[in-house]
Parts: sequence; C-alpha cells; structure tokens
Amino acid sequence: MRGLLQNKYGTMFGVSSLATVTVEEIAKIANTPKMFQFYFHKDRGLNDALLERARAADFNVLALTVDTITGGNRERDKRTGFTSPPKLTLDSLMSFATHPAWAWNFLTKEKFDMPHLSGYVSQGTNLAVSVGDYFSTMLDQSMNWNDAEKLCSQWNGQFALKGIMSVEDAKRAVDIGCTGIMVSNHGGRQLDGCRSPFDQLAEICDAVGDKIDVICEGGIQRGTHVLKALSVGAKACSGGRFYLFALAAAGQAGVERVLGNMCTEIERDMKLMGVTKLDQLSRDNLRFHHSR
Amino acid sequence: MRGLLQNKYGTMFGVSSLATVTVEEIAKIANTPKMFQFYFHKDRGLNDALLERARAADFNVLALTVDTITGGNRERDKRTGFTSPPKLTLDSLMSFATHPAWAWNFLTKEKFDMPHLSGYVSQGTNLAVSVGDYFSTMLDQSMNWNDAEKLCSQWNGQFALKGIMSVEDAKRAVDIGCTGIMVSNHGGRQLDGCRSPFDQLAEICDAVGDKIDVICEGGIQRGTHVLKALSVGAKACSGGRFYLFALAAAGQAGVERVLGNMCTEIERDMKLMGVTKLDQLSRDNLRFHHSR
Amino acid sequence: MRGLLQNKYGTMFGVSSLATVTVEEIAKIANTPKMFQFYFHKDRGLNDALLERARAADFNVLALTVDTITGGNRERDKRTGFTSPPKLTLDSLMSFATHPAWAWNFLTKEKFDMPHLSGYVSQGTNLAVSVGDYFSTMLDQSMNWNDAEKLCSQWNGQFALKGIMSVEDAKRAVDIGCTGIMVSNHGGRQLDGCRSPFDQLAEICDAVGDKIDVICEGGIQRGTHVLKALSVGAKACSGGRFYLFALAAAGQAGVERVLGNMCTEIERDMKLMGVTKLDQLSRDNLRFHHSR
Amino acid sequence: MRGLLQNKYGTMFGVSSLATVTVEEIAKIANTPKMFQFYFHKDRGLNDALLERARAADFNVLALTVDTITGGNRERDKRTGFTSPPKLTLDSLMSFATHPAWAWNFLTKEKFDMPHLSGYVSQGTNLAVSVGDYFSTMLDQSMNWNDAEKLCSQWNGQFALKGIMSVEDAKRAVDIGCTGIMVSNHGGRQLDGCRSPFDQLAEICDAVGDKIDVICEGGIQRGTHVLKALSVGAKACSGGRFYLFALAAAGQAGVERVLGNMCTEIERDMKLMGVTKLDQLSRDNLRFHHSR
Repeated sequence: MRGLLQNKYGTMFGVSSLATVTVEEIAKIANTPKMFQFYFHKDRGLNDALLERARAADFNVLALTVDTITGGNRERDKRTGFTSPPKLTLDSLMSFATHPAWAWNFLTKEKFDMPHLSGYVSQGTNLAVSVGDYFSTMLDQSMNWNDAEKLCSQWNGQFALKGIMSVEDAKRAVDIGCTGIMVSNHGGRQLDGCRSPFDQLAEICDAVGDKIDVICEGGIQRGTHVLKALSVGAKACSGGRFYLFALAAAGQAGVERVLGNMCTEIERDMKLMGVTKLDQLSRDNLRFHHSR
Repeated sequence: MRGLLQNKYGTMFGVSSLATVTVEEIAKIANTPKMFQFYFHKDRGLNDALLERARAADFNVLALTVDTITGGNRERDKRTGFTSPPKLTLDSLMSFATHPAWAWNFLTKEKFDMPHLSGYVSQGTNLAVSVGDYFSTMLDQSMNWNDAEKLCSQWNGQFALKGIMSVEDAKRAVDIGCTGIMVSNHGGRQLDGCRSPFDQLAEICDAVGDKIDVICEGGIQRGTHVLKALSVGAKACSGGRFYLFALAAAGQAGVERVLGNMCTEIERDMKLMGVTKLDQLSRDNLRFHHSR
Repeated sequence: MRGLLQNKYGTMFGVSSLATVTVEEIAKIANTPKMFQFYFHKDRGLNDALLERARAADFNVLALTVDTITGGNRERDKRTGFTSPPKLTLDSLMSFATHPAWAWNFLTKEKFDMPHLSGYVSQGTNLAVSVGDYFSTMLDQSMNWNDAEKLCSQWNGQFALKGIMSVEDAKRAVDIGCTGIMVSNHGGRQLDGCRSPFDQLAEICDAVGDKIDVICEGGIQRGTHVLKALSVGAKACSGGRFYLFALAAAGQAGVERVLGNMCTEIERDMKLMGVTKLDQLSRDNLRFHHSR
Repeated sequence: MRGLLQNKYGTMFGVSSLATVTVEEIAKIANTPKMFQFYFHKDRGLNDALLERARAADFNVLALTVDTITGGNRERDKRTGFTSPPKLTLDSLMSFATHPAWAWNFLTKEKFDMPHLSGYVSQGTNLAVSVGDYFSTMLDQSMNWNDAEKLCSQWNGQFALKGIMSVEDAKRAVDIGCTGIMVSNHGGRQLDGCRSPFDQLAEICDAVGDKIDVICEGGIQRGTHVLKALSVGAKACSGGRFYLFALAAAGQAGVERVLGNMCTEIERDMKLMGVTKLDQLSRDNLRFHHSR
C-alpha cells in the first residue's frame, strides 16, 4: 500500500527487517527507489539472507540501523505489553476499547507476521517476542565499525548509517565508504535526554554535507519541518510516525492524506518563502537559539 | 466609519482589494492619508482598474501585498467554512450562537459584498468564494520583482511592499523604488513557524531605515508595542486584529475605544519613559534576548 | 506601628505624601532613620509645605518619586474602583466578602484620611479621589531635572531619586547632587513590559555604585532576594508589598512576622553561603542568564 | 539492608551522624567501601567519638558536611512537624492516612532511634528533636577551614567535603588535604535559589578534577544523569532521594529495584551512546545552554 502511494507522491520507500510484508511483495508494487532498513543480527546467516533478499528485490539503498544496538528503556511499552504482534493484556484491551478503529482493524485484518525473520527466531513459537526482547536477544550488540564497513562493501551500493548523531560518527561513516547518513535518534525513544536530530543537523552538514547525503529523520510532521531541514543542509527527510499515526487511524486513506498534505504544504511554504527551487534554501531562512 | 475615526485620531486608513466598502466611499469620509492594500491578480485588467480607482479616490499610498502570494494553510478556516462573506455551516452557526452580538450584527446588517472585485469574479455567482480559494484562483502566484517594480512606477507615488521579513528583500525594495516597506508576516497566519515582524525589525532598520520608511505590522495591541517598535527604528506601526476584534464585538464604539486607549497609552508610557518626543526613542530603551 | 517595628528590627522607615498618618506622628514613635517619599505636585506651596514638615519631623532622607509622574494604566484598579480611601462598589463589596479580615478592619477601624494633602485638594469634599485621578490632576507631569536639582538643594541632606531604571539617569542623579537612587519600577504597576529593578541593578551599580547609594526596590520577599541585590552591588533593599500584604492580613502582628522572617532568612542564608559579613558578598555568588 | 544491596550492586555505602543504625551494625553486613557522613558538632567529644567509631568500623571515607552548618528554611517541615523520629501531628496523621504503606511500616516496625547521638543529646528525653532544631542547637555553626583541616588530618584517610558548590571552595579543599569533594546543595533544601550541583560541575572539575575526586550529588534519578555527570568530569555520583523514596514505598525490594534499574540504564545508555568504557565519556556528549 505504501508502495502504491510512494509511486503517486514520488517518496522513497523504507522497510525494516521487522516488516510484516516481505521485500519481494514490496518490489512488485513500488516503482520509486526503495530502502531496506537493516538490523544487524548475531546470526550472520540471517544478515546475509536479508541483504541478498533486499538485493534480489531491487532495493536501492541499504540503511544499517546503528542507534538501536540495544532496545531503549521504553517504559510505556513495558506497562502496556507492546509487542509485535501486540499481546492482549488488560491495558492493551483498554487501549483498544478507547481506540475503536484500531481495534476493529486489529481484529478483522489478517494476522501480523514478521516474514523476514521467520526461520531465525528461536524464542517461542508464535513470534510474539516483545520489541525489547528482540533487540536484546537477536541483535548483535557488539557490532562495530568493521562490521559496518564489511556490510557496506558487501552491499556495494547506496549505503547509509541510520542513527548518526555526532560529527565524529558522520566523518567515520564517510571513511568506511557510506554514501549517506540518516541523522536520527530513533524517534527519541532510545536514549532519554537525547538531542533531536535537527539540533545536530547543522554541524553534521558542515562536516560531511559535501561528501555524502545527509538525511534528517525525526519529528517531521509538516512542510515547514522539511524546509527547515533542507535549509540547514539536509538532502532529504525521513519520517515514521508521520505516516504511521495516519495509517493506524485511517489506513491507506490516512497515509494518502498526510502525504498529500505534505506535498501541498511544501509547495505553499516555498511560495510564501519566495523560493522556487530547493537549492535556493539556505540557513539565511532560519534563526537559531544559542547553545554550545 | 473607520474613516471617521481616523479623522479623530489622526491614524492612516488602510483598505484592501477584498474590502466590502469601495475606495470612493472611503474617500468621501476620510481626511487623513489613505493606504490601499493591493493584491496582485492574474487579471492585469483588474490590477489596472484597482490602481486607477485608488488613484482617483486620492489614496496616498499603494501597498503591494507580497506575503500572501498564496493562501496560508489556515486549518481553522477550513474547518469552520470561513469565507467572505461567511458561509452558514453547522460550525459557524455554533460560533454565532456563542457570540450573540456577532450573530446579531451579521443577521441584521446589510449583506457583505466585495465591490472592488465585482465584475472580475468568475467562480460562482454570489462571491461566496472562500478566502483560500480566492488566493489560489485569482491571485498571480508568479508575481516577481519586475511586476512589483512596474506597479511601483505605474503608481508613481508613495509605494510600499507589505510583507517584507528579510534584510535582502528590504534592500531590493529600495532598489525597485519603493518609499516604504511594511515588515509583516500577515498576522502569522501564512507560514507556520515564521518569525514575528518585531524579531526582524532591528536588522531591517539597520539595513534600510535611513532610505525608506519601515513600518512594523503584527501583534500591535498596546502603546508599549508601538513604542518598542519605534525604539528599534520603525517609522510607524500598523495593526489589523488590533481594531478588528473591537469592531466585531462593539462596532464603531469598539474601534473608538481601542483607538482612544492606544492614544492614552502611548502618551502615558512616553511620560513614564521620560520621553517627550518620538525621536528621543532609541534601542537604549530595550533589552534583547539572544538569537542568531 | 511600623515605626515601632522598625525600632525593633533596625529597618529604615518610609512614608509618602499619600500617607494616612502624618510625619509628625511617625517622628514620635520611630527612632531609626526615616525616609519621606516625595511626590512633586503642581502646587509648589504644597511641595514646600511637605518638605518643611518632613524636615521639622527630623526625617533623614527625602526620596523624590520620579517613576510616577503620571499614573500607570492600572486596569484592575479601574474595574474595582480602588481609591484611597476605598469606594464601596459592587466589586469591592465582593472583594470584602471574600476577605473577611480585611472587611472587618475596614469597617471597624477609624476612617482613612490623607492628612499631608488636606487643605490642598480641590477635587470633591471627601478626598475620595482615585489614585489614578490624583496622579493626573495634582502631580506636576512636567517636572524635570532642574526641578529635581532645586528640590535636592532645598532639602540639603540625604536626597534620593526613587524610580531610576537606566544608567544614564543614574549618572544624572549623581550630577544634580543626589546622595542615593532607588532602582525601582514602582512595583511593576506603571509601565507594562518594564524590566525589573534587579535586571538593571548590575549596570547601574557599575556606573555609579562608587559615588552614591544604590537601593534596590521591587519584588523583595525573601532573604535571598536581599542577598542577591547586595551581591550585585546594592547598598540596601526596599520593599512595599513585602510588608503590606502581611499588614492587610494580620495587622501589626503580620508585619512583625515578615520582618522577623526576613532577619532570620538573611542570617541563615549568609551562613549557608559561607559569608559572615555583608561586604563579603559579590557577584561571584551569582550566575546570570544572557541578555543584552 | 542497604549494606546487603550495595554488596550486590557494588555501590558505596553512606551513613550519617543522624543514622538510625550504627556504623558497627553496618560494618557487619557491608563488604564494599563505606562512607561516614560527618556532621560537625559543638561537642568536640561527640565529634571525636563519632570519628573513632567510624574508623573502628572500618569505614573508608569520612565526608564532612559543609552545606548544612545551619538548618535550611524548610517551610514544609515546619508545617508538617517533620522530626526524626516523626511526631504524630494532625498533618502527619493525614499524610499517613493517604500513604497507607508508609503508615503501616511506621506503626509496625521497631521504633526509630539515633544511636550515634545518644548520650550527647540534652534536649528532651526521647530524641524527638526536630531536624531543624538539631542543626541549630547541636551543630557548630562557627566551624571553619581550620576545623576541617584538623578533622581531615585526624581522620588521616580518604576525606571529602560534602556540599562544595564553588571553584574557590573546591581549591581550598585541595589545599587542606582533602582527597575528594562532593558537589552538592544538600538536595536543594538548604538555600532557596541555589544552583544545582550539575550546573557547577564543569568549572569545579576544570579547577580540581585532576587533583581530587569530584563526586556529583543531587537529582540523580536515572542512568543518563550519572552518565552526564561523568561526561562532565565527575568521578562518581551520589544520591539520597534516589533510593529513599523507593525505600519508603517498598522497603528493601524498592531499593533493590531502583538500584537494578540504575545498573540496567547505565549499561543500556552506554551502548546507545556507543561507549564501552567510562573513560570514553567526555563533554563532547553534551550540549550546554548559556549562562555566565
């Protein structure tokens, strides 16, 4: 479905190792560039298999997730029993009761699955492993720069690190051969007190913006957010909750609506800023509060 | 009515292309300088006609609106069906019900019209075009600096750009022959996240304050607001909601009251600041928080 | 009563032209230094009479009020009919009903009077002139530096300007022979958007602190407030609402309590700051947020 | 009990002169380093006795409390009759009623006592002296740097000043032979308007971080708080309310839970920061807002 909409709006499509739809199915319906969000597992066979499936499905970009080497302390998830697929606890039942559209979708749609991981999951039989447990048991927390460099070379194409927040790491991404980085703190859900990606964007763009693509991810909800990031020097923006809330509330129609709104807003805002092309955007459009 | 009050308080009178009263009627009742707020339409005939009507009615200033080349994303307007004249939707009826004085005025006063545009509006028969639609269908969104320069020379008198927010544009306004600029973000309703006019005032005054009149528009509600803007270097201030809320709530008496209050406040505040003439105002009166 | 308490706590006593008790009565009961807060009237005979009464009553300091040359726009006072003595309006009756102790005091105590002004008030017969009216009808709004200099020389003793907020005015106070200034914005009730006295204290102390006494007035409620002002460079602090709220709520016992608390707090806070004498206080004790 | 848990989590144990359990009992159950928080009393015999008891019980660190030379103005304590042990007032009864677990513990557990002070307390018979009274009647408010130096030399071991908040005092701590300082404002309960320890940490570490151990105390509740302090340059962190709230609510299980959480958080956060050893932490991890 997102594949269909990205065709319409020309957005790049991203899907992760945890996806409930396979890269092959996505490839069938999406014409625009596709990104595979890669999690680095202890099981190197699983890593290789995922990489080759993404390559075979003509995915254009491999983005290695580097800000989720361990699960964040998602205290709310622990209370509500958030798993993928969701567990029915008293709390989650209450949540369903107060969000009837979500509950309806959950109960009437086909069951969730994580096909990319099937065959590699040893914990339990029904994959109802909590997101937190998945991170701690299946991911390789000792992943290092060598692993990233090897994966980059193995992919041998557009390769990004997803979750860079410092100039130092951005420079190293260049050194190991990345063609891009996604400045991201994983939605602010990993490390409490973390700065926002936008806060880090300027210095990272200053350091590596002329060498690799810098993508800003985090908190993107409106056209002005995108234009601010591009004004600072980002090449593009990426969003998750941006379309996910709409998806949960109204399905494909919801996602279509937010993508349409985003298009309209970017156009309108550019007119109001007196800008006709993206390369006319610059930091002169912005004012910053101090921090150091 | 505003014409009458401006005679009493010596304020300059401004009216836009969207006005419900003609420039000719205003000319009959107003003695003080008059400003015509010009919207640049696709229909050059309409533009010429408006300009000549303003000239014939002895308007002293033409202010070309440059921050509303497209309608802002006024999300509330979309929900409430705000049009000029207003449409009776369930929401607007509710709004009327909770603002009885407004409803009474709306239902008992003569019907609204936009006489400056009659004869040029092709959409529908009753002019009940939403403000958003008006901007997108009738205004020339490709208006550029050449258009502005030509209009300035065609008017051949006091000419201002209304909606300047940057030093660069302020300088260009000087270059094309403007005699003034109105620093404004159109009431903050156009571009979300926009800075306030006052925030931009100092650097704009520094750049062009000695060459053209810089007028500060936006958020002016009290005498101290005016005195702050003049202290920074503005020549004058302009306000919309300042008198419009009073107008909606209490008609001519309301506007008279806010104008009277403004006079009194400016006088009192100058006394309290130890200032007897406006040219004694300077930035020494103010302290600024940092931004860069 | 305040006279009695100042004997106990060694505070300086201040009373204004608007006082309900005469300088002569105060002189009888107060042993510590006394300050007369002088308002400059149109009626120079009244001015002279007030000055001589204060001198005859052995007042030690004359403080000329310079921040209240006109009444502030005290919007609340207008609504509640606040006058001295108070007028019984519906609003003030409601206020009395919800503050029974105040109402009891008002109804059972002897009637208020402004004895310093009796014989000079032409408006009405019962002195129930609103504070706002008093400022606008009786005070000389054209008072200038020459008037202040003449008064200073006429008094020929400790003479302060009360209501200085800028370095420039502080320097001029030195020039005309003042021995002190009270950095004050008249309780923040005069000019909306005014900075606080403490905000201005550092630069004023830097400019004139070695030549005259700088007194900080405004918002002093606790021992730390006094210690902060002294750390910046003030010679002393002055407070109005500090004791007035306590007075209204609990009479002499209330004032005694807040003065006692203040003493205790200053002592305790000095111990906690590791300071045994006031001259050990310095700006090293403080950290400032930026503004310029 | 804390002794047992510190064995498990490797935390250092601290206990004060006001403790309800003796240093000897603690020594029996705790294997990891122990700190005795020393209050300097007027009664030098009590001081000597406490020091020797701590030495005999193999305590490793003596921390002299220097920010509580006098009781803070703990206004809430005055209202609720907070004493050690607690007094049963109407307010405290209400408080117990709304915190049933606390009340249950209070009523069923053995009575509190302050064994370190017994034999030295002359005020009353049951030790129910309020914390405020204890500070003002038993502590030596004239304690000075010589006293601290003498105590340091008398202890002749790891010796810290607890409650340092300035560079100047930190330097002097080095001069008198201290091996550490605890940057602390005593939980913010002593001096209102005081800066937080973390605010002062950087400049203190810059001044003495290479000469003595700088420990950050105050507001530590999460792993990121510890990592921030260590990134600035602290050697360790210390917390009181961190475990005390858990203790009051759930006893040993509560403390075990918060210590476990803290361990987990520090580990997880280090992984997310890309740090494998504490000495990789530096100020590059942080961004500061301005103050000067």
